[in-house]
Amino acid sequence: MDTIKVGVITTSDRASAGIYEDISGKAIMETINEYLQNDTVYEYRCISDDQPIIEDTIKELAYKQECTLIVTTGGTGPAKRDVTTEATEAVCDKLLPGFGEQMRAVSLQYVPTAILSRQSAGICHKSLVINLPGKPKSIKECLDAVFPAVPYCCDLIEGAYMQTDEDVIKVFRPKGK
Amino acid sequence: MDTIKVGVITTSDRASAGIYEDISGKAIMETINEYLQNDTVYEYRCISDDQPIIEDTIKELAYKQECTLIVTTGGTGPAKRDVTTEATEAVCDKLLPGFGEQMRAVSLQYVPTAILSRQSAGICHKSLVINLPGKPKSIKECLDAVFPAVPYCCDLIEGAYMQTDEDVIKVFRPKGK
Amino acid sequence: MDTIKVGVITTSDRASAGIYEDISGKAIMETINEYLQNDTVYEYRCISDDQPIIEDTIKELAYKQECTLIVTTGGTGPAKRDVTTEATEAVCDKLLPGFGEQMRAVSLQYVPTAILSRQSAGICHKSLVINLPGKPKSIKECLDAVFPAVPYCCDLIEGAYMQTDEDVIKVFRPKGK
Repeated sequence: MDTIKVGVITTSDRASAGIYEDISGKAIMETINEYLQNDTVYEYRCISDDQPIIEDTIKELAYKQECTLIVTTGGTGPAKRDVTTEATEAVCDKLLPGFGEQMRAVSLQYVPTAILSRQSAGICHKSLVINLPGKPKSIKECLDAVFPAVPYCCDLIEGAYMQTDEDVIKVFRPKGK
Repeated sequence: MDTIKVGVITTSDRASAGIYEDISGKAIMETINEYLQNDTVYEYRCISDDQPIIEDTIKELAYKQECTLIVTTGGTGPAKRDVTTEATEAVCDKLLPGFGEQMRAVSLQYVPTAILSRQSAGICHKSLVINLPGKPKSIKECLDAVFPAVPYCCDLIEGAYMQTDEDVIKVFRPKGK
Repeated sequence: MDTIKVGVITTSDRASAGIYEDISGKAIMETINEYLQNDTVYEYRCISDDQPIIEDTIKELAYKQECTLIVTTGGTGPAKRDVTTEATEAVCDKLLPGFGEQMRAVSLQYVPTAILSRQSAGICHKSLVINLPGKPKSIKECLDAVFPAVPYCCDLIEGAYMQTDEDVIKVFRPKGK
């Protein structure tokens, strides 16, 4: 089984300054640990809401660390300091609008303010980059909604081969692939 | 209670030339009057379908008039003179794709041609800009669908504080905000 | 009744090299033949997954052949050689995000990997361009989902007037149009 390298980026002025603990980044790693049967190595970064820093961090995790999957949390709302979406779109070679549509559709079942989320996803080098919300509860809802498509996406971009726990998450790969 | 300044822009070659009356702009103001308990001041503009004029009008309402909310009606279809979407995207600092997705999803319950709408939304300076359809009936359907997220969005971009009539529209703000 | 000129572009390195037969392009023409009562002329092109070639082909079919409708199949996934979306967005004057949203929503009823599709649509000169998936089964699902809006869209962009078989597909034009 391949070892899966996953980048986890928390963008938060306050968490990166140590004002409060980053529980969102931990929630992501716990959820992915439950999904995957592979050994998983996390490259974890907790950084401020600065677009150039976010861009550099995604690129480092994609080009240098060669993570198969990079997930961000935070910075996708309409406020001035919310720039994770901008950073993601700037460094990705391709955008995958279906991820944002699906995450907003799922979040909309819980709160009407889901339409304020600018969550995006895309391909940076050979990494799938996905923007998750900032709140731990919403993170799990969004990951559950899009993860069934993640392993096949990673196959298509020549990433590592993910093997998932069928009792936790039902993923889909077309037959013969 | 804050006074709410709302910009209403009707883009229509014919209405702006006086060939017919603009009933869409009036429908927007009536609907927002029903939603809001605050005193509301409208900055109303009826202009032709020219992209530079639409851009200048949005910017004037955002930067000079400091409207918390700017709504447009018309110019979001696929025809050559439909350029309100282009103008909106050109002047906004951030786009909020969830608004367009949600308005198309709601309109799709009524007409399959809802997918032709290019309605967008975004943040211009400290104003939330929302493209509404041209037809009065569709305007109300779209506003009802997205308005529950509008007051919290305006909070996040440091706009005026909207207070709404719960019997007319259920809006959502996260607890403690 | 107007004669309808339809461009059909299969983008596939292997089909264009003769390694396998293009059944997707044929599936599109059969489906459109069932929809339309007009005489229909097809401009069919089977080309490699090269962005400049795809762009030139769309432009030739839009500007020189003056097709009312141009449909592509293939090249909308996340893989490196999937560049049909990029080519479409580069040559279109306007994009119609509602088509992609609707096609992904429909495909999502069958497979969770539908969110990987970057299918787009837009207006190039006076042609409506629609990206369809590569697989014949998914092509029919997507065309059935968006075609009800196609004839009215072609009216709005001054294309030929499509007349459809009501027993096969229910299209919609607003009253009095």
